[in-house]
Amino acid sequence: MSVLVVGSIALDDVKTPAAEHKDLLGGSASYAAVAASFYGPVRLVGVVGEDFPPEHRALFNARQIDVEGLEIVPGKTFRWSGEYEENLNNRKTLSIALNVFEKFEPKLPAKWKQTEFILLGNIAPSLQLQVLKQVEHPKFIIADTMDLWINLAKADLLELLKKIDMLILNDSEVKLLTGENNLIRAGRAVLKLGPKYVIVKKGEHGALLFGAKTGEFFSTSAVPLEDIHDPTGAGDCFAGAFVGSLAQLGDTSFASLKKAVIQGTLVASFNVEEFSLRRLEKLTREEIAARETAFMQSLSIV
Amino acid sequence: MSVLVVGSIALDDVKTPAAEHKDLLGGSASYAAVAASFYGPVRLVGVVGEDFPPEHRALFNARQIDVEGLEIVPGKTFRWSGEYEENLNNRKTLSIALNVFEKFEPKLPAKWKQTEFILLGNIAPSLQLQVLKQVEHPKFIIADTMDLWINLAKADLLELLKKIDMLILNDSEVKLLTGENNLIRAGRAVLKLGPKYVIVKKGEHGALLFGAKTGEFFSTSAVPLEDIHDPTGAGDCFAGAFVGSLAQLGDTSFASLKKAVIQGTLVASFNVEEFSLRRLEKLTREEIAARETAFMQSLSIV
Repeated sequence: MSVLVVGSIALDDVKTPAAEHKDLLGGSASYAAVAASFYGPVRLVGVVGEDFPPEHRALFNARQIDVEGLEIVPGKTFRWSGEYEENLNNRKTLSIALNVFEKFEPKLPAKWKQTEFILLGNIAPSLQLQVLKQVEHPKFIIADTMDLWINLAKADLLELLKKIDMLILNDSEVKLLTGENNLIRAGRAVLKLGPKYVIVKKGEHGALLFGAKTGEFFSTSAVPLEDIHDPTGAGDCFAGAFVGSLAQLGDTSFASLKKAVIQGTLVASFNVEEFSLRRLEKLTREEIAARETAFMQSLSIV
Repeated sequence: MSVLVVGSIALDDVKTPAAEHKDLLGGSASYAAVAASFYGPVRLVGVVGEDFPPEHRALFNARQIDVEGLEIVPGKTFRWSGEYEENLNNRKTLSIALNVFEKFEPKLPAKWKQTEFILLGNIAPSLQLQVLKQVEHPKFIIADTMDLWINLAKADLLELLKKIDMLILNDSEVKLLTGENNLIRAGRAVLKLGPKYVIVKKGEHGALLFGAKTGEFFSTSAVPLEDIHDPTGAGDCFAGAFVGSLAQLGDTSFASLKKAVIQGTLVASFNVEEFSLRRLEKLTREEIAARETAFMQSLSIV
C-alpha cells in the first residue's frame, strides 16, 4: 500500500568532529521518504526553491518516490546548519533559514487524498493539521515532532495528538512533553493525550513502543554500531521505514507495529554510517535483510 | 553449584529526593550474595565490625547464605553515605569511612577454595587478586569494578583482567577504562585486555554482553519500571543474580551467559523498588518467574 510522507526538504550544512559537508540533502521528509521507499510506493509532499539541486531530485526519482506533491516555488530552499559534539549525541543548530518553507502550505494532489498510511514528518503541528484536513479515510496516521514544537506550539501539538494514531518522539522530547522524568511513565502519559500508540526513540539505546491496551509494550535495542559518521536524519529514517514497513505488512496489529519498529531501527542504523542520505542511496533490500538476521540473533536469548 | 561472593559489606545512609534512610545494609557483597541466593548456595567472604546489626546478619541467614567466610573484627563496619539527584541517574558520595575494611585481607575457608563460580564484587583490584591466589580450579571468574579503581588502581586492575573470565562494569566506566566513546568499541576493547567476556550495564537502557569469539554479542533492554525508589546496589544485584544463575545452569556456554544476563536484569529490577535490600528480603522465586514471563513478552517480536 502507498505511504504519504509530508515534512521538510532542506539543504543541510553538517559538521562533526571528523568532517564537514555542505549543501547536503536533508529535511524530515527527504529522510523519511527515502527510508520508506525500501518497502513500497511513497508519495512525497513538500516544497523546495528553484535552487534545489537536480542530483537531490534524482535521488527521489531513483528511489521511485512519487514527487507530484513536491512544489517548486520561486526563492531558496529551506537551509539548516548544525554541528555535533565529540560523542555525536549532542548537537547544536548553527543557523536556520526557512526561505520558501516560511509560506509552505501542504497541498495533496486529489488522487492522494485516499492514501491509507500517513506520516506527518517533523514540521510545525499547524502544518501537520493542515494535511489531516485533506486526507480521507486514513488507516493509520503517524506524527513525528521535536522539542521546538513542544516549546513553541504546544496547543497545536495537543490538538494534533487527538487526531493521530501514533506519535514518534525521542527520550528527551517525551520528558519535555509530559513533564515525567521516568521514560516508562512519560511514554504512558502520552497515550492519555490522544494517540493509541507512542514510540520513544532512544538513539544508541533502541526504542520503546507503548500501546493503550493492556500488555501492549515492546522494547528493542539499537543495532550495535562501531562507526557513526552523521546522526542527522536517523529519527526521520526510523519513522519512514516504520510507516513503509507497516504499509507493506498492510495491517496495524500490535505484532505488525513491532515488526515495523525493527525495520525502522535497521534503516536508521544504515543512515548514520554516512553523511546525509549517501548510505541509503546505495542501500539494498538484501543488505537490510542481512543486517536483520544478525540483529535478530543479537536480541535472541536462545 | 556453589557461588563464592567476595566484596564489601557496609552500613549505608542513602538520600533520594523522596526519602532518606540510615544504617541500611549495603556493600557490593551484601547485594550480590542475596541476589545470587535465589539460584543456589552462596558462600560469602567479607568483613564487618562488632557494630554490625543482628538484623542484617539475619537476612544472610534467612537467604541461607553461608557466612563462614564473614569475619567479625573489633572496630566499626565500613560506612557509605550517598545522595541521588532528581532523576536518580546521578549520585554523589557524601562520605566514606573504611573502618574495619581498611585492613581487610580476604581469607577463604579451606573447603571453599574449590568453589567453581567466583564473583569478585566491587572492591580494590588488589583484594580481588588476593582472592584469586586462594582459589583452586575455578570454572568461571567474574569481576565487577568501578571508576574509583580505574582512576586509582589501574595497574592492579589490568593485572586482574588477565586472570578473569568476565568483567562487569557500567557504560561510563567502560568508556573511562578504554578511552573509547562508542560503547560497542569500548566493550570490544575490554576483550583485548584479557577477559573472554564483558558485560556493559546501561541502567534503564539494559545491558550488552560481548564475547571474544565471532558473533558473540547479546543486547537486552531493562525491565520497564515506573517507580524507582533507590538504585543503590542494582549493579551488584545484577552481578550476583548473573553468577548465581550461571552456576545453577552449570555451564558457561554463550547461551547460558545470555540466560544469566536476563536473570541479572530481573533481580536488579526488583532491587530498585525499595531502599537497601528490603525488596529482595521479601522476593520469591515465583515473583521472579512471573516478571520473567512479562519481560520476555516485552522483548518478543512475535
